[in-house]
Amino acid sequence: MCDTNAYIDNKGTEELYLENVNLIRPEDGRVYLKNLFGEEKTFDGTIKEISLNSHKIILKS
Amino acid sequence: MCDTNAYIDNKGTEELYLENVNLIRPEDGRVYLKNLFGEEKTFDGTIKEISLNSHKIILKS
Repeated sequence: MCDTNAYIDNKGTEELYLENVNLIRPEDGRVYLKNLFGEEKTFDGTIKEISLNSHKIILKS
Repeated sequence: MCDTNAYIDNKGTEELYLENVNLIRPEDGRVYLKNLFGEEKTFDGTIKEISLNSHKIILKS
């Protein structure tokens, strides 16, 4: 497993938003996320960066 | 390793764009990608969906 977590970029600090993300779908000004456990969250903002190397999805509003 | 590949969604078929993607950075109307081997590509379009489960990044123009 890759165990990729989503974080919100908050002025340089990263706040955990959702763990074990499986699915990422950018929508109009929002980002839909679903994780390994079926938990779904929609973030108001965009993807800043995804580093699969560091297993990090960085979101920004 | 997760071995995630990027594909272009072309009317339902998926055309391989870049293998072993490490880094994904959406820019204004473009998507910057970098892979394990340091290869960089910038796609004119957006991210349709990323399924970490299926190790697939789907791009659309």
